[in-house]
Amino acid sequence: MSTDFPHVEAPDADARAAARARQGRLTKPAGSLGRLEELGVWVAACQGQCPPVPFTRPRVVVFAGDHGVAAHGVSAYPSEVTGQMVANFVAGGAAVNVLAGVAGATVRVVDLSVDSDGAGLPPQVTAHKVRRSSGSIDREDALTEDEARAALAAGRAIADDEVDSGADLLVAGDMGIGNTTPSAVLVAALTGAEPVAVVGRGTGVDDQGWMRKAVAVRDALRRARRVSGDPLALLRTTAGADIAAMAGFLAQAAVRKTPVVLDGVVSGAAALVAEELAPGASAWWVAGHRSVEPAHTLALEQLDLEPLLEMGFRLGEGSGAVAALPLVLMATRVLAEMATFEGAGVSER
Amino acid sequence: MSTDFPHVEAPDADARAAARARQGRLTKPAGSLGRLEELGVWVAACQGQCPPVPFTRPRVVVFAGDHGVAAHGVSAYPSEVTGQMVANFVAGGAAVNVLAGVAGATVRVVDLSVDSDGAGLPPQVTAHKVRRSSGSIDREDALTEDEARAALAAGRAIADDEVDSGADLLVAGDMGIGNTTPSAVLVAALTGAEPVAVVGRGTGVDDQGWMRKAVAVRDALRRARRVSGDPLALLRTTAGADIAAMAGFLAQAAVRKTPVVLDGVVSGAAALVAEELAPGASAWWVAGHRSVEPAHTLALEQLDLEPLLEMGFRLGEGSGAVAALPLVLMATRVLAEMATFEGAGVSER
Repeated sequence: MSTDFPHVEAPDADARAAARARQGRLTKPAGSLGRLEELGVWVAACQGQCPPVPFTRPRVVVFAGDHGVAAHGVSAYPSEVTGQMVANFVAGGAAVNVLAGVAGATVRVVDLSVDSDGAGLPPQVTAHKVRRSSGSIDREDALTEDEARAALAAGRAIADDEVDSGADLLVAGDMGIGNTTPSAVLVAALTGAEPVAVVGRGTGVDDQGWMRKAVAVRDALRRARRVSGDPLALLRTTAGADIAAMAGFLAQAAVRKTPVVLDGVVSGAAALVAEELAPGASAWWVAGHRSVEPAHTLALEQLDLEPLLEMGFRLGEGSGAVAALPLVLMATRVLAEMATFEGAGVSER
Repeated sequence: MSTDFPHVEAPDADARAAARARQGRLTKPAGSLGRLEELGVWVAACQGQCPPVPFTRPRVVVFAGDHGVAAHGVSAYPSEVTGQMVANFVAGGAAVNVLAGVAGATVRVVDLSVDSDGAGLPPQVTAHKVRRSSGSIDREDALTEDEARAALAAGRAIADDEVDSGADLLVAGDMGIGNTTPSAVLVAALTGAEPVAVVGRGTGVDDQGWMRKAVAVRDALRRARRVSGDPLALLRTTAGADIAAMAGFLAQAAVRKTPVVLDGVVSGAAALVAEELAPGASAWWVAGHRSVEPAHTLALEQLDLEPLLEMGFRLGEGSGAVAALPLVLMATRVLAEMATFEGAGVSER
């Protein structure tokens, strides 16, 4: 299981230029749809054609896993919630299911490292399971090297599977009690930020919990910094199988030239690692939203991505990315379906 | 034709409280969907029930009209574009048609005062026509008193017609070359702002045009300030039939307890007048986006509305409101369709 990703090609420059030009021929003042115009141009470049075609299979993959560090009081919720929420995703009752229904996307949940035996879950959910939970990163490695490689390979396989099944727009969501702790560590390790700058309240930890989380991040970061130039070692040391798989998924999506809408701090942390694994991958991503987690803003800055939404989300699951999906669909259809000045007989200035 | 609107009732406080409580029982940390949660609570209050029901007929009404002041170089486009764009809306080729298609909304365009004879347009488009164009507000009244009353009544009738036809979520869009000039005047008159603080570039006027626009706004504002306490006189003096009708539409939507997503500076100006006509109406509105027009931000501040999107739109047509519609639909369906902790067997903190 190699961690070498093929070269990531850049989105198509000719399609980008053609899309920019087309924005000026549609029946609206050039630039009057602001960021929606840039977004449509990006879609055209990713698809390598102008006008771009409307997306037919937007797909959300939720990467689920538990985190050993959650046993040390860094989260407002107990780890048992992760497995319960996996069942909730399968049943369609979670927030991301409802949001995806509005956006015309479908949701798949994959159990990489939930701390349960996966009984009763469909095989598609558990087929890529690497282990139960992860080591408590404030004191031990999250994964063994083999586990880290297996998780990365699982993410790549899931991306290939989805693209081969026709997915043309991807979202990586997360579910895992305690997962903002390793995410904060990864962001700090890859941006050089201090622990207190990356520690947020996750899904709502109280002041005591925040302090425990800050201590855990500080301790994990000491070990992470020693390997911050080696993405596989970083995943092994302070990520978890869920986040490692997500990094592989994001990198492979770029290899497969499939655009991705990023979500919050967990996908932001995975994206930073994916960009290390497959340089240039970030050109295939757009940021769906800015979460309230401070580390997310640091990750977005490093990735040079400006989020589409700022709604104060702090849920995960891919919810903030899915909330932004309609904007991506709109941007695409503006280029694909709007009349031109010439076609509609409308005078230009 | 009276301009007296009935008392506007407030959205339902019991449904609001029930929705707030329900947000805490759904399978997500309370507050983790940020502004989307507030938005769902507002929908429940407007509908007077919790959970709210998903919207079945979101409807965009585009109010079209020309403006005499456009003959004096305040816009980047000639007035003939207004009528051409009305035909484009009818044909489905404009930006708002495409965006509405993604959002599941339908679009109706109404010609209140386009400077054309309306030949070839469906009767539904022209049935409410008040006049051709408007007086050039930098030097004369936009409308006669009878015309202002007729336009206001037309807007009320259109709102009644739409609500009676089953519309359960409304957007007021605008189309009219030069219409950001009267909008800027109305915003300045009702917020006390100075002319230079309200004059933007509209759909893209150049520096010379901006200066002409600033002079026109200054001159019109002198006359508007004399009647700023009388909304009908203000519409007569410095609005136009399209904006007057939009004000009547927004006020009547509130009377009919139907929620509205506001668009940019034109709907913001009409909303300020509507709030004067029917105090309390603004409780039935949410701001879809913040346009780049400076007067729009002033209008939103006065209405105490925080926009959902900031995408740099400056198109009008209702485009910014329609871009935000999926968020309103998502917020509603989160409350209506998500599982509860109890129902899904998920542990609370």
